[in-house]
Amino acid sequence: MKISIERGALLKAVGQAQSVVERRNTIPILANVLIEAEGDTVSFRATDLDIEVVDRTPAVVERPGATTVSAVMLHEIVRKLPDGALVGLSEDAASGRLTVTAGRSVFSLATLPREDFPVMASSEYSSNFTAPAPVLRRLFDKAKFAISTEETRYYLNGVFMHVATGEEGPVLRCVATDGHRLARIDAPLPEGAEGMAGVIVPRKTVNELRKLLDDDEAQIKVSVSETKVRFATPQITMTSKVIDGTFPDYSRVIPTGNARRLEVDAQEFAKAVDRVATVSSERSRAVKLSLDEDRLVLSVNAPDSGAAEEELAVAYGDERLEIGFNAKYLLEIASQVDRENAVFLFNSSGDPTLMREGNDMSAVYVVMPMRV
Amino acid sequence: MKISIERGALLKAVGQAQSVVERRNTIPILANVLIEAEGDTVSFRATDLDIEVVDRTPAVVERPGATTVSAVMLHEIVRKLPDGALVGLSEDAASGRLTVTAGRSVFSLATLPREDFPVMASSEYSSNFTAPAPVLRRLFDKAKFAISTEETRYYLNGVFMHVATGEEGPVLRCVATDGHRLARIDAPLPEGAEGMAGVIVPRKTVNELRKLLDDDEAQIKVSVSETKVRFATPQITMTSKVIDGTFPDYSRVIPTGNARRLEVDAQEFAKAVDRVATVSSERSRAVKLSLDEDRLVLSVNAPDSGAAEEELAVAYGDERLEIGFNAKYLLEIASQVDRENAVFLFNSSGDPTLMREGNDMSAVYVVMPMRV
Repeated sequence: MKISIERGALLKAVGQAQSVVERRNTIPILANVLIEAEGDTVSFRATDLDIEVVDRTPAVVERPGATTVSAVMLHEIVRKLPDGALVGLSEDAASGRLTVTAGRSVFSLATLPREDFPVMASSEYSSNFTAPAPVLRRLFDKAKFAISTEETRYYLNGVFMHVATGEEGPVLRCVATDGHRLARIDAPLPEGAEGMAGVIVPRKTVNELRKLLDDDEAQIKVSVSETKVRFATPQITMTSKVIDGTFPDYSRVIPTGNARRLEVDAQEFAKAVDRVATVSSERSRAVKLSLDEDRLVLSVNAPDSGAAEEELAVAYGDERLEIGFNAKYLLEIASQVDRENAVFLFNSSGDPTLMREGNDMSAVYVVMPMRV
Repeated sequence: MKISIERGALLKAVGQAQSVVERRNTIPILANVLIEAEGDTVSFRATDLDIEVVDRTPAVVERPGATTVSAVMLHEIVRKLPDGALVGLSEDAASGRLTVTAGRSVFSLATLPREDFPVMASSEYSSNFTAPAPVLRRLFDKAKFAISTEETRYYLNGVFMHVATGEEGPVLRCVATDGHRLARIDAPLPEGAEGMAGVIVPRKTVNELRKLLDDDEAQIKVSVSETKVRFATPQITMTSKVIDGTFPDYSRVIPTGNARRLEVDAQEFAKAVDRVATVSSERSRAVKLSLDEDRLVLSVNAPDSGAAEEELAVAYGDERLEIGFNAKYLLEIASQVDRENAVFLFNSSGDPTLMREGNDMSAVYVVMPMRV
């Protein structure tokens, strides 16, 4: 293999690939990136056995071939090369080394045989559809804060992407929950997604996927099988196993009869929660909301360190209510609101509370109260 | 005590003070800041028993007095208050709480009696002088990378500030070394510093001091006794114990006969060292410098991961030389050079190497070679 490629393109391609590589590896080949050159394209493939990323980029291929080198080291080297440098990658089969050249720099990197590199088995994708990057970005970005980190409830360690019936017909829906809070985000159902089996996309995949979704103009091809999900742009293909489990029936958790309506400026609310929570202890982060006619008092009482109280002018017309929440959960939920006021719908101080952005039903959050 | 003060001024004063507070404290009072209000000034005092910082700022003092509250919590609260807010601090002696008010926020913080706060004993300062902030900044900034972290050689855990004889007469000199490298930085001797006893300023003090030196126009009053050093601006007084030990005779370590002269663009050199060091292993970070007529080749050979080599055009007119260094040490030394080319003076591959910025003798660095 012998290729040359501009440093910027190489950095982007290797960067995308190396980020799925796990830093602590017991299997040496998994620390490597598989470089394959053919025609006028070079591809960089990396995997942690659960996620595989292939990044393709045009290159001058003088001699086709393939080899594997340390993904992190190659990335570090390319990152440190001067902007605009032309980088040569050539494999010397005899020495088993990959030579990286740029200007007056020469690197010679240990390789492992391409045959040892585990390429993910292909899958029969039963559903295929295309969605604009901003749509998928919103679905996953707004849901992922609620993903559970409890390993025993492994089926909650991801975002449940499925087809559901929303207020105005069928939707593509992402749901995540950790039992304390839940996010349910809807988007219009893309053509071809009808009948798609629901899949639980693991947390790491959700995070890695984010890099494919930055380009507002990009159209993302999504393919779903029973065991895998694939997201692809013309340059990058990311294939991931899905979590083998059943996502619980979340609809039972979402309250429908909550009638006490509070409307509040989400930013002001978040800042006030953050302030009063300063005095709370690390263990108990409880914030009390005391609601009265157009008036909300946030308060924290931590016997050891002190107390805090802040009043906010809000829209509230129902009877008095006192209800407690984990400050972190309130902050995370409030930070999801990006366009309008936050609307909270309460029932009693012991019941789950619903939050949404204005009257928009396409993003709904539930948070469990705590005793204060 | 009852005062009111603008949030920005309060944040700055509390911020300076709280930064010396150790995060893990077994003595509760040491987590607190002592607030003292009198006349039209409020002062914030914090200590870790080795360093004491007092920050004074004007305030409207309605009722003079003093109390102590958690430094970190007060700082966090003030940080989160909206810009421009007027903050009230008032002590309720009956409840033992300090009430912090701003807008619609009210905080009530636990206090500890001011009597329990350890105020650092005053000292007889035998030397007093004034130096511009940029002069002290340069002295400490350029020396501190070489401070040792080895606790057994406690007398190297700081910067040795003393009076010495430089190329052009008496100088104020800062020296730091960890046995592998050494920095010796000179400044013209300020009036009044003649006869000052040398003191070893501890690492933490050097770091905390940095915040007093940001203002280019500031004049810093320096006072030195046998056991303490004090740095003061009109707002802030920082008093620190000095390290009770004898700084070794560093002059014997600085080579005077090194004749082989290499001149190189410091930035280019640092970047090249950084690049070739990418392939080195974590344990051994050796970089080899091979010098020949106006040519420097940097190389690293790490059997496990690979090799790297880079050539630089330099000014070198002596005979061939191969010499190895720890890459980290070379990088740190090269990053001290801010104006001119780096000039290295070598003797043999086993002898200490001298580095300076161009022909400037007021900043001299020594680095020990390693076998490659």
